[in-house]
Formats: sequence, structure tokens, C-alpha cells
Amino acid sequence: MYKLYYAPGTCALASHIALEEAGADYRAERLDFKANQQRSPDYLKINPKGRVPALVTDRGILTENPAILAYIAQTFPKAKLAPVDDPFAFAQVQSFNSYLCATVHVAHAHKGRGARWATEESSFADMRRMVPKSVGACFELIEKGMLKGPWVMGEQYTICDPYLYTISLWLEGDSIDVKTLPKVADHMKRMSERPAVRKVMGEQQAKAA
Amino acid sequence: MYKLYYAPGTCALASHIALEEAGADYRAERLDFKANQQRSPDYLKINPKGRVPALVTDRGILTENPAILAYIAQTFPKAKLAPVDDPFAFAQVQSFNSYLCATVHVAHAHKGRGARWATEESSFADMRRMVPKSVGACFELIEKGMLKGPWVMGEQYTICDPYLYTISLWLEGDSIDVKTLPKVADHMKRMSERPAVRKVMGEQQAKAA
Repeated sequence: MYKLYYAPGTCALASHIALEEAGADYRAERLDFKANQQRSPDYLKINPKGRVPALVTDRGILTENPAILAYIAQTFPKAKLAPVDDPFAFAQVQSFNSYLCATVHVAHAHKGRGARWATEESSFADMRRMVPKSVGACFELIEKGMLKGPWVMGEQYTICDPYLYTISLWLEGDSIDVKTLPKVADHMKRMSERPAVRKVMGEQQAKAA
Repeated sequence: MYKLYYAPGTCALASHIALEEAGADYRAERLDFKANQQRSPDYLKINPKGRVPALVTDRGILTENPAILAYIAQTFPKAKLAPVDDPFAFAQVQSFNSYLCATVHVAHAHKGRGARWATEESSFADMRRMVPKSVGACFELIEKGMLKGPWVMGEQYTICDPYLYTISLWLEGDSIDVKTLPKVADHMKRMSERPAVRKVMGEQQAKAA
């Protein structure tokens, strides 16, 4: 059985949804970020980076959403969560997820995690002011081309979809009106209606309460 | 034949070395970042993100190092650049590359690319001051655990190695003394002696001259 470490409101939601969509046998283990549990000695043994997600498997621990998502797709091929037998199509999936991970998530993180890259309160305030513009520019690229529709890769639902949904949930807090992004808004609605997403959201919210 | 868009000194070096190691039939196409060629209308048609690397294939264009590197490994299995038939081992490779892409490269980028995330000169200066500490913390994790040695994944050379080498080349400019990181220093030396690396470095430097 897999164990997924997550915290509500974080990008670990993407891997959580993917495990559920794959029909994997797993348990979700909540960390309390307010108590800084991700930096506790016990958790640092699991993930020395002090971040989520971390997926405990019978062969060892995996970190980083793009890696975990590809692992789930390759380990549960019947769930058809990625074109695992077509290196080019698989690379397109990975390219999208890499962009979410290294550019879109990073732009968003400058709202609340400025201390990773600077020390002054004035810098944090400057970074926060930029987030609607920087995240907005990313989502403009997604809206205008990368999101093929109805799913990210077109007709087939893939591991790109829970990841985009996870980051789309941050738009409102980043002061971006999703109504200006009709394809993204439609994608969010479709995602929110999937049984796997409802189940995972219910579990994360119940445990957080 | 593949065409790889790159600029000297950028992370595109990782994909360039991997193509060479794989024995791929490719041409490397240099962009002039000083002339802002990556934002030219012609290049934005190739990569709307205005970044490198971009790999032109006969099926379309791929962007983002982690995706391109995995694609090369899967497309040229005889080169043994990743454990492509073992989803867990492949995920370990991808996890390492994802960390380089989304955390280590991003920390480094705060030295010269602060305008991506802020607007004030005081914020850029603050960000620049933090780089030795933030990149240093990443390389401490790499030195102490992630880099198994002699190669990143142990005895087998993989797509993690050209990517780590590429980012290690930035250490000196980030005011980090590689002598404090003996495993990383040994890795850099080993990499610099590989014929593929020598050939690619020679080509990138010649074209830049």
C-alpha cells in the first residue's frame, strides 16, 4: 500500500487525485503546515527537502509531483493517465507538467514564500504585487494554446489534468478572475465533477477541519 | 533530424549533451540572448514561452529540459540514459531532474532574472544577496544524499548527469566554492572528461565566439 504525505491547499493535491483516479491502494497522511510539521525531524527523514508531496512505496520514497504523476501513470497503465507507450506524446504530457512545476507554481509561490529567495519585507511586498501579472501571464499561455480542451491533452484525461486543476484552485487567491479564462474555467468545472476529485477534496477538507 | 535551440550558458546545455550522448542525428541552433532573440516573433512561434531549450522533432516541438531529457532516454534506449523499463527507478531519475528544474535552477535565476518576480531594484539586490545561501542549501542536499556517486544515480550514467553538470557550472558565478562540495567537484571533473561533453562544450563556445 502506498502512503502519500500531503497538506491541504498544496500542490500535493495533484498526486492525491492521480492515485485515486488510478485506483491505487493508498493512504493519505496529512501534515500540519501551520505547526511546521514538514520541517520536523521525523518528516525530514522521509523528505529531506521538507516539502510535499512525498509518496512512500515498497521500493522507497518518491518526491516531486511530475515524477510521482508519471510513476502513477506508468504503474497503473489500465487507468490510461498518460500515453506511456508513445515517447513523444508522453513528453508532451511531461512538458506541460514541468511548466506547471517550475514556472507556474514558482510564480504563485512568490506570494507567500518570498523568504525562499529574499530577506526584506519590502521585497516580499514587491513579489506579492507581481503575482497577478506573473501567474496571469502563465495562465494566458495555458488558455491560448497549451490547454487543448476539454482536457489538457485533448480528448484524453491525463496526469496533466489534476495538476492544472490544483494550480487553478489558487487563481482566486492570486487575484486572477477565472472568468477571463473561459477554457480554464470550463476545465475546473469538469474536474470538480469527477468522482475521484470529489472524494479527494472531501477527504482533504474533512481532515483539515 | 532533430533541431535543438539553445543559448550558451543556459540550461539547454543539458539537452544538448544528452542528444550527443544518445548518438542522435541533430543540429544545434544558437540563439543570441544578448539580442533578445528568444523573444523574437520567429522564435515565439517555436516556443511561445520565449525560453530554451526547444527541440524540434518530426512530430512537433518539445520544451522543458526534464521532458526533453526523458524523451531522449526513451527514444534512444540503447544509449541507456535512464532505466526506462523500471517505473520506480525512472521516477527517481525524474525526481532528481524535477528538483534541478523547479528548485535549484529557480534559486539560481534570482541572481539575474529577478524581473520575472518583482519590479524594484532593491528587491533584485535582495534576491542577488540570497543566491549563495539558497543555491548553497540545494547543493548541500545534493552533496549529502542525492548524488550517489560516481554518477547521480550511482554506477550508471543517466540524464541526471548532464543536467547536474549544467547547473554545477553556475556555482562559481553564484559565489559557491565547489571545493566545499567534494562529490559535486568530482562529478564535474568526470563530466568534463567525457567525449560528448567536450564536443558539445567546444561547439557552444566556438559559436559564441
